[in-house]
Amino acid sequence: MGHTFPALLQRMQELKDLSGAIGLATWDQETYLPKKASEARAQQLSTLQALYHERLVDPRLGEALAWAAGQEGLTSDERAMVRVLAHERDRAVKVPAALVRALAEAQGKALVAWREAREARRFAHFQPALARVLALRREQADAYGHAGERYDALLEGYEPGMRVARLTPVLGAVRDALVEMVRVLAARPRPPDVLEGKSFDVEAQWRFTLELLEAMGFDTEAGRQDRSIHPFTGGTHPLDVRLTTRLFPEYPLSSVFSTIHECGHGLYEQGFAPEHYRTPLASAPSMGLHESQSRLWENVVGRSRAFWSHWLPRFREYFPAQLEGVEMDGFVRTLNQVHPSLVRVEADEVTYNLHIVLRYELELLLVADALPLDALPGEWNARMERYLGVRPKDDLEGVLQDIHWAWGEFGYFPTYTLGNLYAASLYRAAVAQVPGLEEGMALGNLLPLRDWLRAKVHAQGYRLPAEDLVRQVTGHGLTDADFLGYLRRKYGALYEVSLP
Amino acid sequence: MGHTFPALLQRMQELKDLSGAIGLATWDQETYLPKKASEARAQQLSTLQALYHERLVDPRLGEALAWAAGQEGLTSDERAMVRVLAHERDRAVKVPAALVRALAEAQGKALVAWREAREARRFAHFQPALARVLALRREQADAYGHAGERYDALLEGYEPGMRVARLTPVLGAVRDALVEMVRVLAARPRPPDVLEGKSFDVEAQWRFTLELLEAMGFDTEAGRQDRSIHPFTGGTHPLDVRLTTRLFPEYPLSSVFSTIHECGHGLYEQGFAPEHYRTPLASAPSMGLHESQSRLWENVVGRSRAFWSHWLPRFREYFPAQLEGVEMDGFVRTLNQVHPSLVRVEADEVTYNLHIVLRYELELLLVADALPLDALPGEWNARMERYLGVRPKDDLEGVLQDIHWAWGEFGYFPTYTLGNLYAASLYRAAVAQVPGLEEGMALGNLLPLRDWLRAKVHAQGYRLPAEDLVRQVTGHGLTDADFLGYLRRKYGALYEVSLP
Repeated sequence: MGHTFPALLQRMQELKDLSGAIGLATWDQETYLPKKASEARAQQLSTLQALYHERLVDPRLGEALAWAAGQEGLTSDERAMVRVLAHERDRAVKVPAALVRALAEAQGKALVAWREAREARRFAHFQPALARVLALRREQADAYGHAGERYDALLEGYEPGMRVARLTPVLGAVRDALVEMVRVLAARPRPPDVLEGKSFDVEAQWRFTLELLEAMGFDTEAGRQDRSIHPFTGGTHPLDVRLTTRLFPEYPLSSVFSTIHECGHGLYEQGFAPEHYRTPLASAPSMGLHESQSRLWENVVGRSRAFWSHWLPRFREYFPAQLEGVEMDGFVRTLNQVHPSLVRVEADEVTYNLHIVLRYELELLLVADALPLDALPGEWNARMERYLGVRPKDDLEGVLQDIHWAWGEFGYFPTYTLGNLYAASLYRAAVAQVPGLEEGMALGNLLPLRDWLRAKVHAQGYRLPAEDLVRQVTGHGLTDADFLGYLRRKYGALYEVSLP
Repeated sequence: MGHTFPALLQRMQELKDLSGAIGLATWDQETYLPKKASEARAQQLSTLQALYHERLVDPRLGEALAWAAGQEGLTSDERAMVRVLAHERDRAVKVPAALVRALAEAQGKALVAWREAREARRFAHFQPALARVLALRREQADAYGHAGERYDALLEGYEPGMRVARLTPVLGAVRDALVEMVRVLAARPRPPDVLEGKSFDVEAQWRFTLELLEAMGFDTEAGRQDRSIHPFTGGTHPLDVRLTTRLFPEYPLSSVFSTIHECGHGLYEQGFAPEHYRTPLASAPSMGLHESQSRLWENVVGRSRAFWSHWLPRFREYFPAQLEGVEMDGFVRTLNQVHPSLVRVEADEVTYNLHIVLRYELELLLVADALPLDALPGEWNARMERYLGVRPKDDLEGVLQDIHWAWGEFGYFPTYTLGNLYAASLYRAAVAQVPGLEEGMALGNLLPLRDWLRAKVHAQGYRLPAEDLVRQVTGHGLTDADFLGYLRRKYGALYEVSLP
């Protein structure tokens, strides 16, 4: 057929450019799209996604990839490009078009039913639509194929290479340790919120977030920040990375931490190697590893005393009246309140992972068809009580709180905790490998950390699966030890207690 | 082959959605794109355009269109959709891929050469690159096919249905009349600029332009205004129309008239009929007719005394100090200064069309290969002197001033004057058909004009060729009479002189 690598590369570039167009249309949808254009934009996105899918499953691309997989003369990066794209294509090819359409339709209906169920605060209104989505996702998992554990086939879509057999023991250890830790911390007096009841000008907040972006080394000539209802990171290219944040007068920490979080994602995207641009390697190897960057910056760095040693005085210059009398100890305790609660998205970094483990355990049962859906709310509530000691008073506070399942996103939740675990391991390695890292941070110097992450993680792109990359950088793969050790040290000191 | 109209419609929608994605990427390029992403964006646009082209020339689309052209049962709108798309496709199919590539390359080089030539202020630096573009455009025109007049084949790309044989006598009459009119007006004392030397806060200018948009009936829930270096109208859909303007402290009329101008285009885009959305009918039938809307609003309305009867007092509320002592007569004369000059984009509405006629005449010669390129600057300068009585001191002030030829845009210039001619005819019809139009306008009521244009022009979409649509609305086709009559009345009164 006369295959050449440049011809294959051109197909890769075309797919990346199409992804970029989808990224732009999605970003615009959440930032600047006029109100009446929402249906038009959904149609445009659907067309672009269908085109992407069509180019991906094109048999001629399959032939070119098969040819390239057999070539001896390719560089290791070229071989990795072929491997990554072939993996994406193989999964796409395995799902019949009728199933893709049925899933899209079922997800659309499930979103509507989920919203109605939330209005009524009753899971029963959502249950039939969820059952349909779940049945189709099971069918899809079987179409992808798996070695007995169906959940693996869905997890693969978010966390390539990760398996239930590897993940369950780690998350089980996290759960058991956190249940004990939360029990101890929840018994201590809750530290006061030193910012409560004050108002912070949103334009000043905006300028402060821009200063943070600059200090973290986000390149504003290769990206930008805008406002949206839900903060996210998107864009079209490593030189065009788009962050959003949101600003509330009463909650200045919301914009601060959403900017730091999204900037963590954004630095990953900006850090891909120029030689990987417009190829499958300009991509994180997993959602968990991507999330590790946002959580490393948001929690490990952004909620640390070292970070605020520099930034609290600066923050005070923006808001002198509101920060009068606020001292470092009280401020850092405010940032790190541990408090068992019902809602995942409001959870602190200790209790958060129990919310995730709960969802992971229920997903395993649901995907295996081992839990009848009408028992789901009860199982949810029972586990909330067991893990966090709190019980939802209705389904809105419980099983209806997340949109993910209506979207059919089974297998996604564990990537959040993987992010926390990888973040702790990577940060520990950074401290060990970069002399004076935290001392510099206390003086406002964040670039050594960014540069280390860029070299060790970002610039590697998708050369290796996530866990292999973490192992290469830290000397070990997925572990709960670094994360639990980090929590014990940090919260032991903050709450002046010895943690189990 | 089992063709159906819904299947063909889906292809039409896909093409429109792809155009929308191109529109978004282009808008973003001029508004929010980070600086370092310009090459990445050019690549993304090139990929999207190549995909659009590929889908357009797809032989299966050709078969479906041929099938549909033979169907009796289609509605007249469906037949028009088939006709418009088949016309676009037929032209695209006629140009060999090698010629498309050669043209893109030659235009790229010509742009570079044009910029270098402007630096050196010498046409000779641009001449070889221009010769190449011109040769390829001639080749392309012959590939399109024509009945002897090669220019017709290029004009067709901007002004479908218009022909040199129809256009030349009209433009000749415009030229002869304007040369006389300009001679008389240029001999009168030039009215003073009542805003000269004052500074106008750009944020206040911005708010004033938003108020203008609102008053003109631009739907800001189906569109938006942003800032860019060069004002333009773009967008992705009739419910997502994007205008831009620019703000200079010293020239408040720049933002005012660029907003009014682009809003004229934007109202056209917003005015397409919902049943035409995502079909070839949601499109103006020609660039000249599109331009008629921007020029009708900018010049005929926006520079009229009636319009400012309402808006000057309002403008004064925004800028009381700057407008102190400025009265209506002096203000309207400032908006309508006639002054022969060298630069098209700075020309007033009387002299402007002589700049266009000059270019049209030279283009006719160039495309026919009847003027050696080294004689072009001299021809330019001689005609400037003959038509406007001014002579460029070098090529930068002359033949190098426009980017269009470097882009290969031969056939584009006459659409500007067609816009002025159609605007005058349409406005005359509006005044005749809408009782109290100008009296209402003097009270700030612009919606009757918008609604008339929407019903008569915008909502018709691409059902008819431009001149047929104008004939349907006004009772006659292209004519110089309405425009020349409008100029004579307006400038005769303003300059207190009887115009030839």
